[in-house]
Amino acid sequence: MRYKIDFSYDGSLFFGYQKQPNKRTIQGEIERVLSSINDSPVTISSSGRTDRGVNALHQIAHFDFNKDISCFKLKGALNSYLPDDIYINEVSKVDDDFHARYSAKRKTYSYFINMGTYNPMKRCQAFQYCKKLDVNLMKEASKHMLGKHDFTTFACGEDRRSDKVREIYKIDFNLSKDVLTISFTGSGFLKYQVRNMVGLLIKVGEKKESPENVGKLIEQKDRKKIGITAPACGLTLINVEY
Amino acid sequence: MRYKIDFSYDGSLFFGYQKQPNKRTIQGEIERVLSSINDSPVTISSSGRTDRGVNALHQIAHFDFNKDISCFKLKGALNSYLPDDIYINEVSKVDDDFHARYSAKRKTYSYFINMGTYNPMKRCQAFQYCKKLDVNLMKEASKHMLGKHDFTTFACGEDRRSDKVREIYKIDFNLSKDVLTISFTGSGFLKYQVRNMVGLLIKVGEKKESPENVGKLIEQKDRKKIGITAPACGLTLINVEY
Repeated sequence: MRYKIDFSYDGSLFFGYQKQPNKRTIQGEIERVLSSINDSPVTISSSGRTDRGVNALHQIAHFDFNKDISCFKLKGALNSYLPDDIYINEVSKVDDDFHARYSAKRKTYSYFINMGTYNPMKRCQAFQYCKKLDVNLMKEASKHMLGKHDFTTFACGEDRRSDKVREIYKIDFNLSKDVLTISFTGSGFLKYQVRNMVGLLIKVGEKKESPENVGKLIEQKDRKKIGITAPACGLTLINVEY
Repeated sequence: MRYKIDFSYDGSLFFGYQKQPNKRTIQGEIERVLSSINDSPVTISSSGRTDRGVNALHQIAHFDFNKDISCFKLKGALNSYLPDDIYINEVSKVDDDFHARYSAKRKTYSYFINMGTYNPMKRCQAFQYCKKLDVNLMKEASKHMLGKHDFTTFACGEDRRSDKVREIYKIDFNLSKDVLTISFTGSGFLKYQVRNMVGLLIKVGEKKESPENVGKLIEQKDRKKIGITAPACGLTLINVEY
């Protein structure tokens, strides 16, 4: 019996998503509870790992279970035993060919930048940048990131996968008080891709890089030219579409 | 030289505001850093303690310092040495008769209630109530809390101070998506008063208490009749006026 779960988490007190021995991880916590309900080990496959400190509103994973339990009961049991920084929004039964990662069609990530006064209450949910950025320049720059590209420029150095072509369908900007939200919807993202794109957009917003140059930087595929990797705390996985 | 500081904190990882031996407290952290800058012990007096788990956007305190340091430098030094869940918004020099607690004229607290899906990312900034409340009934009930009253009904049992008369000037309701914010402005508040008032308003919003009865409950001065003390995580000290 294959189940799909939709869950949210506050990444700030975990050593990342992926299970590691003797570390508190999101995957580790969920598998621990599922294995105990199932009376035998359960492994979950998510739509993708999130880095340490990254949050999720609707992460998706699937797993196979010996027992046929109602979705309602399973959700209740999971939320009773999971720590309060993970929450299962929904449990559903899916076909055996559903795969949280390979069946995913689109993903949306939002990056939150506080341009106002440092806010300790939001320090794990938004990058406390605390200076003004030129949002119009950033919007202009972001247009060069849209569409199908080899995103090597924004990949993590360790990423050894050969195919770095991804497609970005949409980049939305939203300014509410001093908090700028940049939302990226794409076919999928490389490790650190969103945080590196945001790093470059910040450089543009600081007027240290011109919006026109972004297209060239993507073509050059040189990670060293783009600036900082924006901190993990600002990033939230918003949803995954199938 | 007397200084006033305006500071914010995320209360979730502290054992409350007030200094306690071998516990991580907000007062303790600030005094530790100030004492080290001053080369001798410094005690701070705040506008009032906040309970464990309560947050603050603009808490105020004063202290006396041997050294005459510029406010700009002192703010910088404090923010460099303080942990990232406390932030000093402003440092100013004040007259020797300024007292953060006794000179305070009005205080505003906001209480945040999430009536939507449990959100692990907001669990330390809003009460995750996760059910709908009848906000109109709550507004009606809150009118009985306005003005000058003996607030014994909402006091903490341990509170031995004889004078429990306080004045509430304003109670505002704001609904944004599923998050209800109730803001209380008053001359001052007893220990647990806001959380107990919110507990009663929730009972009204659940239709387990009538709005009309709230006036009577205040008159009866019986803590046991009003229901729960709303959890600390939903409460934020917004500001103190002098």
